[in-house]
Amino acid sequence: MGALTVRLPTLSSLLTPPSLSRSSPFFLRHHRTTFKFTTVTAATSSAPPKAQEQAVTPRSHDFNAWYLDVISRAELADYGPVRGTMVIRPYGYAIWESIQEYLNVKFKETGHSNMYFPQFIPYSFIEKEASHVEGFSPELAVVTIGGGKELEEKLVVRPTSETIVNHMFTQWIHSHRDLPLMINQWANVTRWEMRTKPFVRTLEFLWQEGHTAHATPEEAEKEALQMIDVYTKFAYEEAAIPVIPGRKSKVETFAGADKTYTIEAMMGDRKALQAGTSHNLGQNFSRAFATQFTDENGQRQHVWQTSWAISTRFVGGIIMTHGDDAGLMFPPRVAPIQVVIVPIWKKEEEKSGVLSAAATVFDVLKSAGIKVKLDDSEQRTPGWKFNFWEMKGVPIRIEIGPRDVSKNSVVISRRDIPGKEGKVFGISMEPTILVSYVKDKLDEIQASLLNMAISFRDSNIVDVTSYDELKEAISLGKWARGPWSASDKDELKVKEETGATIRCFPFEQPHGTKTCFMTGNPADEVAIFAKSY
Amino acid sequence: MGALTVRLPTLSSLLTPPSLSRSSPFFLRHHRTTFKFTTVTAATSSAPPKAQEQAVTPRSHDFNAWYLDVISRAELADYGPVRGTMVIRPYGYAIWESIQEYLNVKFKETGHSNMYFPQFIPYSFIEKEASHVEGFSPELAVVTIGGGKELEEKLVVRPTSETIVNHMFTQWIHSHRDLPLMINQWANVTRWEMRTKPFVRTLEFLWQEGHTAHATPEEAEKEALQMIDVYTKFAYEEAAIPVIPGRKSKVETFAGADKTYTIEAMMGDRKALQAGTSHNLGQNFSRAFATQFTDENGQRQHVWQTSWAISTRFVGGIIMTHGDDAGLMFPPRVAPIQVVIVPIWKKEEEKSGVLSAAATVFDVLKSAGIKVKLDDSEQRTPGWKFNFWEMKGVPIRIEIGPRDVSKNSVVISRRDIPGKEGKVFGISMEPTILVSYVKDKLDEIQASLLNMAISFRDSNIVDVTSYDELKEAISLGKWARGPWSASDKDELKVKEETGATIRCFPFEQPHGTKTCFMTGNPADEVAIFAKSY
Repeated sequence: MGALTVRLPTLSSLLTPPSLSRSSPFFLRHHRTTFKFTTVTAATSSAPPKAQEQAVTPRSHDFNAWYLDVISRAELADYGPVRGTMVIRPYGYAIWESIQEYLNVKFKETGHSNMYFPQFIPYSFIEKEASHVEGFSPELAVVTIGGGKELEEKLVVRPTSETIVNHMFTQWIHSHRDLPLMINQWANVTRWEMRTKPFVRTLEFLWQEGHTAHATPEEAEKEALQMIDVYTKFAYEEAAIPVIPGRKSKVETFAGADKTYTIEAMMGDRKALQAGTSHNLGQNFSRAFATQFTDENGQRQHVWQTSWAISTRFVGGIIMTHGDDAGLMFPPRVAPIQVVIVPIWKKEEEKSGVLSAAATVFDVLKSAGIKVKLDDSEQRTPGWKFNFWEMKGVPIRIEIGPRDVSKNSVVISRRDIPGKEGKVFGISMEPTILVSYVKDKLDEIQASLLNMAISFRDSNIVDVTSYDELKEAISLGKWARGPWSASDKDELKVKEETGATIRCFPFEQPHGTKTCFMTGNPADEVAIFAKSY
Repeated sequence: MGALTVRLPTLSSLLTPPSLSRSSPFFLRHHRTTFKFTTVTAATSSAPPKAQEQAVTPRSHDFNAWYLDVISRAELADYGPVRGTMVIRPYGYAIWESIQEYLNVKFKETGHSNMYFPQFIPYSFIEKEASHVEGFSPELAVVTIGGGKELEEKLVVRPTSETIVNHMFTQWIHSHRDLPLMINQWANVTRWEMRTKPFVRTLEFLWQEGHTAHATPEEAEKEALQMIDVYTKFAYEEAAIPVIPGRKSKVETFAGADKTYTIEAMMGDRKALQAGTSHNLGQNFSRAFATQFTDENGQRQHVWQTSWAISTRFVGGIIMTHGDDAGLMFPPRVAPIQVVIVPIWKKEEEKSGVLSAAATVFDVLKSAGIKVKLDDSEQRTPGWKFNFWEMKGVPIRIEIGPRDVSKNSVVISRRDIPGKEGKVFGISMEPTILVSYVKDKLDEIQASLLNMAISFRDSNIVDVTSYDELKEAISLGKWARGPWSASDKDELKVKEETGATIRCFPFEQPHGTKTCFMTGNPADEVAIFAKSY
């Protein structure tokens, strides 16, 4: 067993509120590198440690390298054999399952039913809606051979399902009594992206896509807004990501939509991530596919529609919002493992008592519905395990050593407050006390991650009143917020000159009269500009 | 409101145990066609009723037409725009969700983790395992264009994932400590089938595929058997399908497996449906993909593997196992709706009292976790609704009329016992009593459907001692069971001459010495022969 840090009673850590500044964790880290990474995988001891088995690149040094490192070493995902594809490993897939569980309940509560559409779409369907084909045709994967024969009509592997959904809706919708029709599907989609990045942009990804049809434009608008609200709540409450909900500019609107609502998230490198979208499709697809109903006056009308989606990209958003130099930091509500138990003993005669206590604590927490892992492997030192599970972003670590067993207590460390300040000794093993303590701490960590992310976001948005100020903000890697009523051409000019795009016109607008920072004309709204993924 | 049947107190129905014979429901049906189908969809009343809005073809007249009718009219599924594809509608998808919920828990309990592999597989992968490419190459959908360009290597849309799984396993497995590796994925798969049928055989379908790697052949065999056991229990306990588990003949074994275990189900037309399979893959894929580990003695070894799957085909199996001339009959544990409430009133002054009581009953059952639907639409008569929900296979119907309201009671009808015999009056609305009564009845219906299916199965399997007896049994549409140790060639001859194949060598074997009915040689086992889907 490796050397252990001497534990000092830290009553102060119990009394001091968790620090929410981002600098302190990095500072504290400096003082506690007691343990070193050895090998991470369970390779035979004779094998030399491989590059991938070392510690991750520090987040503060190279954000992109850190991102790829944590994905690989925490075994969240791996590259597939086909360029741009990704294998989502159990630890990463569990996050997607958390997302699914939460949203699936919300979708049903708001009146949607799950179903499944085929992924092969006749090429002619894509061509029916003019802006849709323009937006998607460069990204299509096309099946041309089936059952050993050249197909008469090429098939598109769905990049999104509006076209096939409308083809079916046209058959199912006859009267106003068939409306609203509100469905959702969990599915894979394919977009032939050239620049890919695990979770954020892959050739194939998983998502849910909601599709609804309504009798009036007001209902469709209400639905589109309701669903972006569901996404916003999910981001804040579950993923601890303080997204900014708003409306896309015309330039950035979905190919085939009248309006696109979005939630925009600031990643740890201050780039924006479009984390979910909800589209008011108007009658664009219903006109292209003749999706009509007979209204109460016997008149034929085209339906008003919405579609909305969140994808495995959101997992990338969770990874890139939280974390520090040591690795991942998962919000408890989406964490695949919420608590890891590390039993510690030096002498052989201590072993059985420690392991037995650890197993009891495991059972207690598991019965309480907590996602708990007992790491009782003997190949690794406790120090190695501390670093490993820290890198994996597990919110709470419980240590149990011989002294703890004798005192019937455990030591609990918080991932969000590294070092001694996050460590509390002498928490009773008594089930009621322990479970209640752990649940409270998980709630505190959830809140603390959200607060840290809010502070980070707010300290990196600059209010601008001129194009020069915008350029400066963007060049510093920040987001710029300013009144905007300029043209699409001006918007593209900003993109060309600064690399930033309008992420959204946020729902939350400052009061008072506004003057467009680009043209000097009156403006109704401020827009947020940023570089993005 | 349409005319209602006069309700007679039927104490006898309370005392008579439910009939388990298959003939009685058909007999009873003859006496109770009080209500006629009018229009099923909510089309405007001026629209003429369409063909699809009429009653279903009686199951006893034309099983295949009945199957297609119930799928269409109960809105389980619809045809996709591409030949052989299927849209799974909410009522059908809910059954798949029941299957997923149950199996997902069982898979995790038995140590498997969910993950996700890309669906695009390089064509060269498929060619690596000789019998695998032979089995699957005629059925492949191939992507040849991506992002507007001809691809250098053609991509197969996964027909199953053994090849890509092994490609990744080879990167993840190093030491015996990495074993067993046990994963599962919920995914869509594509097989270019020429003869398709909704749910049973479609170009694209949904499934789960488990993949495991082990250090020893014994562990792999144990795993393959464990998973066919999970499927068997699911079929019996949830789907009320008395499948016969067993081993496939060599001819019928999966392309790439050493052994295939199967669960074979007898459909209502007495054709066999292969409802789930579990394969012991031996080292076939690990040798083709060099998936090796270092054992405890430092020796490199190829892993031993399994794979196992259940698909949306199982939904077809549930539909075709249960049901009668009037339509579907879902086992309560997989039924999308377990209880439908039909409020009944004639006079306008009765309406509010009846609707209010119906809403209360709805809330009571819903709070108790029962899947309940309140059909309070005013476009349809109660009689129309009775027929409609009967056709949809809802296990229990609750009627509430003015007299019931005054007596604070409801009328309950069982789908599995049509007519008066399945109808009970005067069940108290008092929540505790009602919930307990409904739950008991759901359990009884679950058991009754299984018992009916067991009786049907057992009365349609013939023990044969000669090829002539087999031919006769098959020509009567039955299954034949007899001792078999003949050659693959003989097996193919049976298929050619009778249309029947070996469905399996059942695990449950009769005692005593056996003589092959084909060759007269000693035989170790009996095999089951049947025509199949």
